[in-house]
Amino acid sequence: MNIGILTAGGDCPGLNAVIRGAVMKGDRIHGQTFLGIRDGWRGLVEDDVIPLPRHEVRGLSRQGGTILGTSRVSPFRGDAGGAERVKEVMAAHAMDAIIAIGGEGTLTVARMLYDEGVPIVGVPKTIDNDLSATDYTFGFDTAVSIATESVDRLRTTAESHHRCMVVEVMGRHVGWIALHAGLAGGAHAVLVPEVPVTLDQVCEWVESARDRGRAPLVVVAEGFTLEDGDIIARDAVDGFGRPRLGGVGEALGPLIEERTGIETRVATLGHLQRGGVPTSYDRVLATRFGAAAIDAVVERKWGTMVSLRGIDIETVDLRSATTELKVVPRHRWDEAAVLFG
Amino acid sequence: MNIGILTAGGDCPGLNAVIRGAVMKGDRIHGQTFLGIRDGWRGLVEDDVIPLPRHEVRGLSRQGGTILGTSRVSPFRGDAGGAERVKEVMAAHAMDAIIAIGGEGTLTVARMLYDEGVPIVGVPKTIDNDLSATDYTFGFDTAVSIATESVDRLRTTAESHHRCMVVEVMGRHVGWIALHAGLAGGAHAVLVPEVPVTLDQVCEWVESARDRGRAPLVVVAEGFTLEDGDIIARDAVDGFGRPRLGGVGEALGPLIEERTGIETRVATLGHLQRGGVPTSYDRVLATRFGAAAIDAVVERKWGTMVSLRGIDIETVDLRSATTELKVVPRHRWDEAAVLFG
Amino acid sequence: MNIGILTAGGDCPGLNAVIRGAVMKGDRIHGQTFLGIRDGWRGLVEDDVIPLPRHEVRGLSRQGGTILGTSRVSPFRGDAGGAERVKEVMAAHAMDAIIAIGGEGTLTVARMLYDEGVPIVGVPKTIDNDLSATDYTFGFDTAVSIATESVDRLRTTAESHHRCMVVEVMGRHVGWIALHAGLAGGAHAVLVPEVPVTLDQVCEWVESARDRGRAPLVVVAEGFTLEDGDIIARDAVDGFGRPRLGGVGEALGPLIEERTGIETRVATLGHLQRGGVPTSYDRVLATRFGAAAIDAVVERKWGTMVSLRGIDIETVDLRSATTELKVVPRHRWDEAAVLFG
Amino acid sequence: MNIGILTAGGDCPGLNAVIRGAVMKGDRIHGQTFLGIRDGWRGLVEDDVIPLPRHEVRGLSRQGGTILGTSRVSPFRGDAGGAERVKEVMAAHAMDAIIAIGGEGTLTVARMLYDEGVPIVGVPKTIDNDLSATDYTFGFDTAVSIATESVDRLRTTAESHHRCMVVEVMGRHVGWIALHAGLAGGAHAVLVPEVPVTLDQVCEWVESARDRGRAPLVVVAEGFTLEDGDIIARDAVDGFGRPRLGGVGEALGPLIEERTGIETRVATLGHLQRGGVPTSYDRVLATRFGAAAIDAVVERKWGTMVSLRGIDIETVDLRSATTELKVVPRHRWDEAAVLFG
Repeated sequence: MNIGILTAGGDCPGLNAVIRGAVMKGDRIHGQTFLGIRDGWRGLVEDDVIPLPRHEVRGLSRQGGTILGTSRVSPFRGDAGGAERVKEVMAAHAMDAIIAIGGEGTLTVARMLYDEGVPIVGVPKTIDNDLSATDYTFGFDTAVSIATESVDRLRTTAESHHRCMVVEVMGRHVGWIALHAGLAGGAHAVLVPEVPVTLDQVCEWVESARDRGRAPLVVVAEGFTLEDGDIIARDAVDGFGRPRLGGVGEALGPLIEERTGIETRVATLGHLQRGGVPTSYDRVLATRFGAAAIDAVVERKWGTMVSLRGIDIETVDLRSATTELKVVPRHRWDEAAVLFG
Repeated sequence: MNIGILTAGGDCPGLNAVIRGAVMKGDRIHGQTFLGIRDGWRGLVEDDVIPLPRHEVRGLSRQGGTILGTSRVSPFRGDAGGAERVKEVMAAHAMDAIIAIGGEGTLTVARMLYDEGVPIVGVPKTIDNDLSATDYTFGFDTAVSIATESVDRLRTTAESHHRCMVVEVMGRHVGWIALHAGLAGGAHAVLVPEVPVTLDQVCEWVESARDRGRAPLVVVAEGFTLEDGDIIARDAVDGFGRPRLGGVGEALGPLIEERTGIETRVATLGHLQRGGVPTSYDRVLATRFGAAAIDAVVERKWGTMVSLRGIDIETVDLRSATTELKVVPRHRWDEAAVLFG
Repeated sequence: MNIGILTAGGDCPGLNAVIRGAVMKGDRIHGQTFLGIRDGWRGLVEDDVIPLPRHEVRGLSRQGGTILGTSRVSPFRGDAGGAERVKEVMAAHAMDAIIAIGGEGTLTVARMLYDEGVPIVGVPKTIDNDLSATDYTFGFDTAVSIATESVDRLRTTAESHHRCMVVEVMGRHVGWIALHAGLAGGAHAVLVPEVPVTLDQVCEWVESARDRGRAPLVVVAEGFTLEDGDIIARDAVDGFGRPRLGGVGEALGPLIEERTGIETRVATLGHLQRGGVPTSYDRVLATRFGAAAIDAVVERKWGTMVSLRGIDIETVDLRSATTELKVVPRHRWDEAAVLFG
Repeated sequence: MNIGILTAGGDCPGLNAVIRGAVMKGDRIHGQTFLGIRDGWRGLVEDDVIPLPRHEVRGLSRQGGTILGTSRVSPFRGDAGGAERVKEVMAAHAMDAIIAIGGEGTLTVARMLYDEGVPIVGVPKTIDNDLSATDYTFGFDTAVSIATESVDRLRTTAESHHRCMVVEVMGRHVGWIALHAGLAGGAHAVLVPEVPVTLDQVCEWVESARDRGRAPLVVVAEGFTLEDGDIIARDAVDGFGRPRLGGVGEALGPLIEERTGIETRVATLGHLQRGGVPTSYDRVLATRFGAAAIDAVVERKWGTMVSLRGIDIETVDLRSATTELKVVPRHRWDEAAVLFG
């Protein structure tokens, strides 16, 4: 059997470990051969496919990024050719199946291809932890680790200067990274897209921490908005009435400083969170996902993706992976909010 | 309500985060007060109890170890006084309930006390991940992280010298740390107590890795025994017929070197694995466990312990925590063994 | 002898280790007592002084920040009172001498106080490594470590996406952090304030790296300016002609992308570089500085500061510390530039 | 010009960075070509030489170990053939010069070859920091970092259990790693080969720390011996009169426990200290050494080695590198001893 592998969407620690897990298991147990599809769907649209023999995946479990490259190209966009073009390229390389590693967008494309008869299996990737069809995916733990380590570092400087520190972490639609890094780092406020709060509330937490002699530490997900959004709109301009650039952290910091009088600094972690060596948790999960994807291929479970439930790997319908965003439930936020202020 | 907290058994990263989670939630939401019982059950037997106000738990989520101290004393051993003595000390401090944080031994004592009427709630702690009543507990992820990082480090030296490296990790009865660190670190063999293999098999994996130009890397849990145990017995003596000291790693290394002719070095990680700053995963889980223990106390769920199932915290009967060891199931080992050699 | 200690200026990993080294040595060897002056010179101006017994410095060698707090207040600014006020507060606490830990500004104040008769000894602190009177100071190694680790992380994502990555590090007047982190991280260009280069040159390095299949990595110090500065001035406005906010990294990234057509991302490390646990290098140096400051006090070497020369600690005149900025010499940059592109 | 490079002796973080620095500079500036001599002198004796083009050194600055391999073979041992054989192999590959990277043994061989007319330049490598002809070499900082991090980790467990912890670090002849890691980690005793102390003194420090409520932490270099060595000799046998195996840490721990009654645990760091990713300090120094070795080759400074003095790289006679061991001077130990107990 001849299997194509691709990684699509944003970079994520653990992609290489999935590739290695799949190739090692397929090569050794089933005598499968592998093809690397370069830069996600682009490689299938533009016929950019390379051999992926076992020795190429050596040592990959601890290497961040993806040796196959990635992009945000879709076969269904513009005149990319859709399923027909994909089948054409597969046929040219005698490719029997595809393992597609990616997030919601990638898995949606995978499902559409499956609907048109492409033998395909998915592996969920989401650094934000926003897929409801799996307990966790690889990359999330590494991102939370990096964000937590950053919070630990920023805290000492904030305390030395008696400042408030606002740390913006990833999370456009869901607040999981903020929630976990905030809990782990002992933040005095965690602001997530799922739970808008007022600036008054934020400042109350900040002042409460300050009043107990602490340097207030606010972790904010990039998708957070103030409940009283007009205040952001009004304040997020500079003295010339021009909108302030930068993310929510850059907007929020000055608001807190103006309102509370506490000197405030902002750190935006950005790309730091998705790079580098994966944590051992992510390496194990990614390796297991890669091996499980081979099982799904061997059992011809087309149109499914692998998924973590508790401590077991299962397969679920690709459709289930792409219908519902896994948001931070209210009870999880309430549980954390006990520690704020 | 006046709640006593104790930590018992071996040290484990995350103990302090549990204490902090419990005290913060109890103090803020329920107006509870807390007492620190020093050095596990010893504090209850010898009446060594201190106030544990909220400001004492400040910053604890990222601090390894336990500020309460720990020991392996049991109230049911010798003339320690059993449940009567425990009730006496509780009464002297007007203690309404106990939160006991510990492993199988501690939770067994907790259950015995509960059977004699002590209002008690457990929090599972096991760095080895050997409790079947919870998916994971805090400490395990940190131990696996440290072991994985050590494997990463040892690999470069092994490769420079073309050596085989044997790394002994914790796990007297179960091989979870070895399994996960071995998977994460890309080991060529992982040896666990649950699956005895022959020295021939180990050497076959070692030679296979060597033949592909790799420095063979063997991760072995301290409780592993060779299937053909007589060989260990025979070889694990020095030239004077005296038994070699040291653990299984120290015994296995020379056997591999003698059999394969590959120069072999041994690293025994020991206490390194249970110390230091907890990973963000363990901090989050421990904090949630601490808060959930307060919920259990408030709901008077005596005789239960908190537990992780998937991504949710539940409570389970203390009895269930102490009846069955969670071993590495055969299918998990088989899944990993695909990558050996 | 009764000695006051203060830390002033920006936070820096190792400040606490200096404090601990001084107090431990003074207390044990000379029976000295210590006073903590809070928030730098502010504590001397506003008489905010606390006892600093030995047990307060326990465990401080590995703790970032400063337990004494810091600020940018100067006794010579406004009506702060100058040397007279300082002497007054010293007298009120029977303070015999001051150990002042800080950068160029702090050491200048120390020198001015010494000129007016205050018995004072300095300890140089500069995360930027810009003091010519010492080979290195504590904090610099930690900053370079964090910047290097960040570069390592950002590289994997840049490679997965075939992007150029611009990393802005600290260094308003000197490029030492950029130079060392760039060398350690294998950057394809290092841009420092001391050596202006043209945008053409930068883009040539970027394209050269890209042409060899690499993801171009540019490390830029915050004080760098393009040799053809007018190009920055022209381009660093948005579509509406408004100046772009953000630092040099934010300005440079789009210029590179526009000129080369290579997708470019920017990471600004900011405060991350000055926080958290000091490296072992910085802990050793800071501890030695603290102990050496006590020697200087005992020998009444007022008006001097401790300094590292090779592997030895010496004392030098405070004046020498504040006259000349230690810039990256041209031969050091040339040495590094061999590796660019 | 055609230059052979070899790495010999024990593995050391930064070897790869030296190789990269040399090849990059030689290739780009001087158009030199490079040959990799495999496994140190073995490659010259057995004619195991490979091309080392520039693309082979890509990304090496952050990779531990040596891609060339290493061994302890000497051309002057047995019938290896000495300088004649070396010249023969050099001639066979048209090799114009050799860059030899290694410790005292390697540099002694280099000097002997130079004495017989081989054009050779040395790069000092010593993880132990025992070469007097250079302030520091690469590898030492990484070893100290790892040892310090280990001490930090072991401390939390020692404190939770009220134990004494003995940590054995590298250093057979000199105690630099112990001294620096002990200072950085806040050890209560640092035991080095240069300064024998009595068991009484060690126990006095241990008890003093315990009496102040600390978990005593002893860092011991592997080459340390008790001043009253007969006590070790007597005690370092088990109940059957057989000598105890293991290093000085394993011998010392039980002695401390028996003498003081404080439960004591031992951690032997071993190979962990010489593996893995080099620190940024070591990467910078190693890269500069590699580039400076090319300068020395171009200037035909045969029989010299590169060396760090303060912040500058110089060249010194190879003879000076191999005549005197750089021991910890008494004043450095005294400086540290102020903090003991």
